[in-house]
Amino acid sequence: MIRPLSIGVAGLGTVGAGVLKLLTENAEVVAARAGRPVVVSAVSARDRTRDRGVPLSALRWYDDPVALASDPHVDAVVELIGGSEGPARALVEAALRSGKPVVTANKALLAVHGAAIAELAEAKGVPLGFEAAVAGGIPAIKALREGLGANRIQRVAGILNGTCNYILTTMREHKREFAEVLAEAQKLGYAEADPSFDIDGIDAAHKLAILAALAFGRPVDFGAVHVEGIRDITALDIALAEELGYRIKLLGIARRTEAGISTRVHPCMVPVSAPIARVEGVFNAVVAEGDFVGRVMLEGRGAGAGPTASAVVADLIDLARGRHTPVWGAASGALNGAASVPMERHVGAYYLRLMVLDRPGVIADVTGVLRDYAISLEAMLQRGRAPGEAVPVVLTTHDCEEAAMRAALSRIATLEAVLEKPALIRIEPL
Amino acid sequence: MIRPLSIGVAGLGTVGAGVLKLLTENAEVVAARAGRPVVVSAVSARDRTRDRGVPLSALRWYDDPVALASDPHVDAVVELIGGSEGPARALVEAALRSGKPVVTANKALLAVHGAAIAELAEAKGVPLGFEAAVAGGIPAIKALREGLGANRIQRVAGILNGTCNYILTTMREHKREFAEVLAEAQKLGYAEADPSFDIDGIDAAHKLAILAALAFGRPVDFGAVHVEGIRDITALDIALAEELGYRIKLLGIARRTEAGISTRVHPCMVPVSAPIARVEGVFNAVVAEGDFVGRVMLEGRGAGAGPTASAVVADLIDLARGRHTPVWGAASGALNGAASVPMERHVGAYYLRLMVLDRPGVIADVTGVLRDYAISLEAMLQRGRAPGEAVPVVLTTHDCEEAAMRAALSRIATLEAVLEKPALIRIEPL
Repeated sequence: MIRPLSIGVAGLGTVGAGVLKLLTENAEVVAARAGRPVVVSAVSARDRTRDRGVPLSALRWYDDPVALASDPHVDAVVELIGGSEGPARALVEAALRSGKPVVTANKALLAVHGAAIAELAEAKGVPLGFEAAVAGGIPAIKALREGLGANRIQRVAGILNGTCNYILTTMREHKREFAEVLAEAQKLGYAEADPSFDIDGIDAAHKLAILAALAFGRPVDFGAVHVEGIRDITALDIALAEELGYRIKLLGIARRTEAGISTRVHPCMVPVSAPIARVEGVFNAVVAEGDFVGRVMLEGRGAGAGPTASAVVADLIDLARGRHTPVWGAASGALNGAASVPMERHVGAYYLRLMVLDRPGVIADVTGVLRDYAISLEAMLQRGRAPGEAVPVVLTTHDCEEAAMRAALSRIATLEAVLEKPALIRIEPL
Repeated sequence: MIRPLSIGVAGLGTVGAGVLKLLTENAEVVAARAGRPVVVSAVSARDRTRDRGVPLSALRWYDDPVALASDPHVDAVVELIGGSEGPARALVEAALRSGKPVVTANKALLAVHGAAIAELAEAKGVPLGFEAAVAGGIPAIKALREGLGANRIQRVAGILNGTCNYILTTMREHKREFAEVLAEAQKLGYAEADPSFDIDGIDAAHKLAILAALAFGRPVDFGAVHVEGIRDITALDIALAEELGYRIKLLGIARRTEAGISTRVHPCMVPVSAPIARVEGVFNAVVAEGDFVGRVMLEGRGAGAGPTASAVVADLIDLARGRHTPVWGAASGALNGAASVPMERHVGAYYLRLMVLDRPGVIADVTGVLRDYAISLEAMLQRGRAPGEAVPVVLTTHDCEEAAMRAALSRIATLEAVLEKPALIRIEPL
């Protein structure tokens, strides 16, 4: 008889309960894949009384999650508490320090403290699984860390936040404004009461930092990620994008350039013909481009109890089978120190939408500023005529440097005929 | 100093040369991911003189591929000869028998002899990698065998043959007929001189048999796969599909039903809104549906030297790291014997296109036959009017059983006013 893998689960929210449910309902499938049963023997959560839809009475209960790590009958710890500090971090570090493998869904912890945690795991020779931390049920970590491991990756990009993608999709399909759709998403449970983590791009940036570390074989560097969210996206810009053959998506993009690695999260205009443009609603997608494999896209549900539990248990199966991969795909000595490129050095095309007074000379003023910064226009589009009143004007540019575009934009914003803060959205040839 | 993984490569065609090129150009990346260098020390191929664009003079050369297996300096064998019999099979069996791991891109071998080969590998405790056998560079094997391993899979489906997808895409985009596009694809090198393996669906069926074994945890059963190719698809049917909101794709589909597992390869009408409908040209895609993860789709290049080499070397990295997964994801004792469901029992909707004499009463005769077999109509569409001459008539049905549809079809084909063999295409609600 082979010994089961005995695990301790900290955090019994939606995901924790999902993991327990999966391990019960699919016990046979999991045991076949894992080569032995995977059983939960201990748990930790704040509220002992809440009904989580799964029986808990036979399990050892710890009020302090860190105590799970020292339970001698726990072979591996599953951390589903969340947050980059506090008990989640304390538990992960305690478990690794005592030589116990860890599986976590915690993107914030890995993005912020992943470099040190990876070093600890390596020093102790202990596996650390985090498939659930990025893109939910999509096996994106495994694809980058193992499946595409033979490639030099040039770019990894993705729709990494389902809340934002749901909001943008709904705004487009129903021609509605951001605030209204957000409020509705909150009512439906697709957005948190405090939505800033999602809609300001921070959650996507955590995930992108992790993907970039894996893709380029260097320690995670969350601080280097340029982050913008979707609060300023309007129904007007979505409609104009459609007219120009684009769709607006919040993307995380990490790219290898001659100057180093650039990592950024911001709304993008992507051509409607690009596969990622069709990933709608709460779905996530990850695109990787390798020198031998070309472009690979993975698409699926990026959140929710079921998909996240699927990813957590995939990591447990790897543990049970003894399949061990270094945290960033290579040992720390084999990671590289490629520099991070600041956003000011970004080169790309831009969509610029202004609200201007409809009167002669305004376009000449605006394009004159762009000329002063050597920014060349690709197209110009004025929608409607209303002499003496406000009309939208759209300009798209050829490739130029972000620093030049920002300088031009702040001058354009001061022009008397420019009535609102201009909207700037980067165009991505994905 | 860690010992390199020393490999022997049999078969130096496009893919073999691609593997050697990758291991040279990306030696540093591969060594970092693998934890040690992966080096080619011996090769086997028929022609010693051909220039393959990679230096071979320093390598031991074997005229007989089977001899690679007994080279004491070869740790693992890479089989890229192809074919289900002959030297490929002899080499794989010899290597496994002598306890050496094997990596192969050979779908025919695995589809036809995979059950016995897996047992041999298991008896010897030796890993067998075949990521390159299905969907080229897309890490589909790893996703099904490991990444989605916690799920009960309900369905796996895919565009598994790039040649067919290229032909169907080109027929649609340029409104051209099959024979013409095939001839052009042969000139461009997208189709073989003898194209039947691809266009008659056999290659896709090999791959589907492998995916079904992985998805449902049972030994591979190529004989159970129902196979139809794309020779009979016409530009007319593609245009009519478009009108009805469908796109025609050659799909491999394996589904778990109450009666058992059904596996089939045939042209399908898929809704234009389905993500797989947008996978065009030489691209492949694999969709898996699991009980916890929901639907996951993977998309990328399914063939060619680069993508295939990427998959072969991913398997070598797993070997070098000591990551070992049973051939079908579970040990033979944990595989199940789920029955195969014959095609006659398939239940689904159908598209039926007839060329009929445009005269009163014809539609009544045709629909009368369908009524006799209890097949209920979803829609009927007659294109153009030409009294006394041939016009196309399209019927789409609600779900019915394949056996009933076939019986009805053979009676319809005998109706005097039906001028050509009717076209039958299954509608898939992917």
